[in-house]
Amino acid sequence: MTLPFDIETQAGAARVGQMRTAHGPVETPVFMPVGTVASVKGVPQDTLEELGAQILLGNTYHLYLRPGHELVRKMGGLHRFMSWERALLTDSGGFQVFSLTSLRKITEEGVTFRSHLDGSSHLFTPERSIDIQIALGADIIMSFDECTEHPAGERRTRESMEMTLRWARRCKSHFDAHLQSRKSCDLRERGGAPSRQALFGIVQGGMYAHLRRESAERTMELDFPGYAIGGLSVGESREKTREMIAATLEVLPKDKPRYVMGVGYPDEIVQYACMGVDMMDCVLPTRAARHGLLFTSEGRLNIKNSRFAEDHGPADPKCGCKVCSRYSRAYLRHLFVAGEPLAGVLNTIHNLSYYLDTIRAVRHAIRLGNLSGIFQVAYP
Amino acid sequence: MTLPFDIETQAGAARVGQMRTAHGPVETPVFMPVGTVASVKGVPQDTLEELGAQILLGNTYHLYLRPGHELVRKMGGLHRFMSWERALLTDSGGFQVFSLTSLRKITEEGVTFRSHLDGSSHLFTPERSIDIQIALGADIIMSFDECTEHPAGERRTRESMEMTLRWARRCKSHFDAHLQSRKSCDLRERGGAPSRQALFGIVQGGMYAHLRRESAERTMELDFPGYAIGGLSVGESREKTREMIAATLEVLPKDKPRYVMGVGYPDEIVQYACMGVDMMDCVLPTRAARHGLLFTSEGRLNIKNSRFAEDHGPADPKCGCKVCSRYSRAYLRHLFVAGEPLAGVLNTIHNLSYYLDTIRAVRHAIRLGNLSGIFQVAYP
Repeated sequence: MTLPFDIETQAGAARVGQMRTAHGPVETPVFMPVGTVASVKGVPQDTLEELGAQILLGNTYHLYLRPGHELVRKMGGLHRFMSWERALLTDSGGFQVFSLTSLRKITEEGVTFRSHLDGSSHLFTPERSIDIQIALGADIIMSFDECTEHPAGERRTRESMEMTLRWARRCKSHFDAHLQSRKSCDLRERGGAPSRQALFGIVQGGMYAHLRRESAERTMELDFPGYAIGGLSVGESREKTREMIAATLEVLPKDKPRYVMGVGYPDEIVQYACMGVDMMDCVLPTRAARHGLLFTSEGRLNIKNSRFAEDHGPADPKCGCKVCSRYSRAYLRHLFVAGEPLAGVLNTIHNLSYYLDTIRAVRHAIRLGNLSGIFQVAYP
Repeated sequence: MTLPFDIETQAGAARVGQMRTAHGPVETPVFMPVGTVASVKGVPQDTLEELGAQILLGNTYHLYLRPGHELVRKMGGLHRFMSWERALLTDSGGFQVFSLTSLRKITEEGVTFRSHLDGSSHLFTPERSIDIQIALGADIIMSFDECTEHPAGERRTRESMEMTLRWARRCKSHFDAHLQSRKSCDLRERGGAPSRQALFGIVQGGMYAHLRRESAERTMELDFPGYAIGGLSVGESREKTREMIAATLEVLPKDKPRYVMGVGYPDEIVQYACMGVDMMDCVLPTRAARHGLLFTSEGRLNIKNSRFAEDHGPADPKCGCKVCSRYSRAYLRHLFVAGEPLAGVLNTIHNLSYYLDTIRAVRHAIRLGNLSGIFQVAYP
């Protein structure tokens, strides 16, 4: 299984490329909006298309619990179920079960955890995660890894990294062995097109550059069509995040997509793309929107602030999105303060627009060979 | 102040007409979606335009409390504040303060009530309601009335009706006396176009046909450009509602718009339009949507029902709305069960589409001169 990936142009370490998935092309560097349970909260799919989203991320842990991967499989896979014919990526569930600190137990076999919905007990193994992701049918699926807690000493981090490597091997073997079932699932969904689900490996190694490098090298021995850098943005400084990404990128192959999971602020997106990262995802634009926080060319804006009560201007005067071209800050503030559901809808549309515009601007700058001055505002 | 209203064609008592407001034409019979606090819950304004909504209803009581009519006036009026350039109607607040049973006190002067938001005390008089509605700047505004409780004896109903008549006179006088301030408000909003806010009268009279007729006759003496029938759908039988509407319509002038407030189910909308009602509004399609109840050509559908879990079909196989043409019942059920905000958004879009399609079909049938068979499904 491979994922066609062509690099169109480079500027320093940064590059513009294209992944060709069975559900259309994805230009990189790309920011992937998060649609946890088969929906980007509050935003209809046609609006996501208008915003130019080329790929969405679904969460395996959540989809497994509700509506259940078998139901999604029966409905023709996640694309058809949620009526999203562009590309999809699912995470492995590893990060989510890791986050259930008091509700999970990790062994060599996998992770036993309790559902946050009803307390029921479940076991995710590397094989199980792959089976679930095959059933969901996303174009890109992820190895089941252990996200090392932060802080963690070197010995503990190495043990965790070794476990992730053993699990990666099990994921790869299981995935390769299930080519046939994958094909049959995909045939139902795609009306006969060949299966092209691609399994990515995940680099761990905590906050130790040499472990990151070792993890990358040994993950690459398994020969994945793309590599993610996991276990970052877990409480470390932004400088440390950057350092770990840099150490890993030195090792990762340049001809494969490189994905930093779970980042970040708009300026981080820009920074990492400039370092040569091809893919990123984050709940920040969507979650912040629901809390009334808007990302703009003038910095972060807390829309509930009373100084916006009579502000005729758009959320971001430099933004051309459908929210900024129609509604005032005063109206957006009113909606938020009044608890109107439209607040979350419009704020999310703006924030996603801002993130997708930002990454588009990065691609443009790379094509022009000029990365200077593409981003001015520092967050948070 | 007058509201141009032309009747294009008639079929029996039913008629197709057009009201020409300063914010564009409104074809009648019309169903007005409710946008209580300057938003139809969860639905962006461009979607309402796509659905063909020609006029929305705003609630004076809610807008007065939040964001406040003075703020809305400063922002250029409700149209500009919510970025809705089509027609708007505001109710008088009478029904809402009537609904605050334990929190209000009615006297000749007006109604003292406590805010449902913070318990603060407020007084609405007929003059105050008109002032607020002038500040909001809707194209059609309503007299402040007393919605008689149900059940109520004849003496009590007459007393209440007499109060509504005295209040109607005060509303009319105050409205006429404030032409100048209305003009200046409107000039700000419309860039110089002449003010054309129209004040409608409201017929009360409880469940007594002779009082309804008397209320209509005496309200007409005040010469409003349109008349509403209020105080219905307050717990009486559907047959009683119909009877009260019929009694009132006999008396009301045929050349002015006739508006039944706060109704109803889709089949009621059709029935009343066929009787010659020109305008209706109701929270039912929007509120029911948020509870997962969908109106369809096959009847009402509770989308959370487990029988829809694997249903590939659209909510309504005969509906061409953007929800039915894209999403399955299985997906809509999943969104609702998972508590996803997109559930309310999509369900509301479908229900509004269904109501607006229904009233469009009624207009079409009237134009064809054939009212038979335009509606089959009985609700609830």
